[in-house]
Amino acid sequence: MPMLDCVVQCVPNFSEGRKAETVAALVAAMRSVKGVLVLHQHVDPDHHRAVLGVVGRPEPVADAVFQAVRVAASLIDLRRHEGVHPRVGATDVVPFIPSRGVSMEECVRLARSVGQRIGQELQIPVFLYERASTDPTRKNLEAIRRGGLQGLARRMETKPTWGPDFGPGVPHETAGVTLVGARHPLVAFNVNLRTNDVAVAKAIARKVRFSTGGLPGVKAIGVELRSRGLAQVSLNLTDYEATPLQVAFDAVEREAKEQGLEIDSGEIVGLILRPALQGVSQHFLQLTRFEPTQVVETGLEELTVNSGGLEV
Amino acid sequence: MPMLDCVVQCVPNFSEGRKAETVAALVAAMRSVKGVLVLHQHVDPDHHRAVLGVVGRPEPVADAVFQAVRVAASLIDLRRHEGVHPRVGATDVVPFIPSRGVSMEECVRLARSVGQRIGQELQIPVFLYERASTDPTRKNLEAIRRGGLQGLARRMETKPTWGPDFGPGVPHETAGVTLVGARHPLVAFNVNLRTNDVAVAKAIARKVRFSTGGLPGVKAIGVELRSRGLAQVSLNLTDYEATPLQVAFDAVEREAKEQGLEIDSGEIVGLILRPALQGVSQHFLQLTRFEPTQVVETGLEELTVNSGGLEV
Repeated sequence: MPMLDCVVQCVPNFSEGRKAETVAALVAAMRSVKGVLVLHQHVDPDHHRAVLGVVGRPEPVADAVFQAVRVAASLIDLRRHEGVHPRVGATDVVPFIPSRGVSMEECVRLARSVGQRIGQELQIPVFLYERASTDPTRKNLEAIRRGGLQGLARRMETKPTWGPDFGPGVPHETAGVTLVGARHPLVAFNVNLRTNDVAVAKAIARKVRFSTGGLPGVKAIGVELRSRGLAQVSLNLTDYEATPLQVAFDAVEREAKEQGLEIDSGEIVGLILRPALQGVSQHFLQLTRFEPTQVVETGLEELTVNSGGLEV
Repeated sequence: MPMLDCVVQCVPNFSEGRKAETVAALVAAMRSVKGVLVLHQHVDPDHHRAVLGVVGRPEPVADAVFQAVRVAASLIDLRRHEGVHPRVGATDVVPFIPSRGVSMEECVRLARSVGQRIGQELQIPVFLYERASTDPTRKNLEAIRRGGLQGLARRMETKPTWGPDFGPGVPHETAGVTLVGARHPLVAFNVNLRTNDVAVAKAIARKVRFSTGGLPGVKAIGVELRSRGLAQVSLNLTDYEATPLQVAFDAVEREAKEQGLEIDSGEIVGLILRPALQGVSQHFLQLTRFEPTQVVETGLEELTVNSGGLEV
């Protein structure tokens, strides 16, 4: 038996956070491929989004994700989809992330090959993003998503430089557009505020995010969680060495307190690498619905326990 | 590292088949325990039920299932639950099933110990069933579920012999009653008919099930799948050597054809052992949404591929 010497992570985001049957079908599609482990599922009815964390050797992971994209295209109709999270596709984003023994170049290659399959076999337009991007004007997600699917469709129609990397030149009728990329690991986390006033969450997001003068490597938006009567600051830390999880959380908490608001809870979305948890306070972890298998390294160790003889 | 020398299966059934967030939380609760693998999730909005298949060493599996029962009690309110499948609890049934190197006696012991924890720590009444049963009059599920949760509550209130094995003497307000058992593996499968006339499905169920003169080891009910506009014959094969899967399927198909009905699709629910698939036709498998990891042996082999060095 070969050793588990190269592991890639992928964290595809699907535009379905309400129908349990559909999320189960997406998980099943990935699991139907031998050699992958679905470590985590983060499902949110207000975002109307499911974030699935999968690891394994590169080729099986790429195939598993493609199978899930296919199922998403058959079960999700974007025309009837409304959630608070920005999205352009039934499968919205597919980021490949280097892990043990896998380089960024390999992730770029995987992104291109999966993107090509999605474009050709499913006839869904694909834009490559971040490290896999082929055009600096649409390297980052926000640039591609600007104006939502409608805005993107308009650019695709009117601007010659906005042809997709793969697939047809107009969005798929029900599945929209899929963004496939390669990137370094990031930390996605949400802070839920005890208020239903989304304006406060948006204001806090503006204070903490880099693009409007906040912390380096921090992206943030404010959204409403109608089903829970809360407002949420939803964050991505793209460089958690520059701004660690605890620093970003503290900043949000401080801004919230200045508005006289309590924090209801936190959530770490999807997978996280153990170093990103360094320096994180008990206080934050107590607030947070967090499962050990969200830590990629623990997920891989768990396999050791399960298998009784993992050689890694 | 010890070898994976003893494996138990458990297939808990939860009364939630619609909210993706809740099903994901149940899966996460199980995954939070080291040393278990959640092999499969079968989720159905009409049954309003999630069937999760988990394997691992006995103690971790027992703990994982208990954690999921706890989460189910906090998230599922049976007072607002309506599905076509008979049920008495937020966690409805918890069957432990012997697998590699684990005896039925060990499964009975596990059922009792988990049952006791559910009764004591969560204050949910527990009835032990099948091999774990302590009373022959309530050994089988149908006997305990007769009249639904209301019927069971009435018996608990009025009949001195109907005290639960663990926990309080009245159903939990929101979580009802949980049935914990030990049993041999069975095959659960559904045949969906191209009609919305549930009376036909009920008639076919009566023809094929053992209790009304049908095939040995076959249980069956007819239900309506309103969300899909279909009627379903939902079967359990408790002795698939006496009546193999293919024989039961053929009987349903024959009865359906006599009524002039086409079969829409089939579904194997939860986990299945490889020998139970022997003699199954391509025709049936083509009809069926079926994932390789539903086969317990394949799920365990998949681990080998993942781990690159599983000693089993």
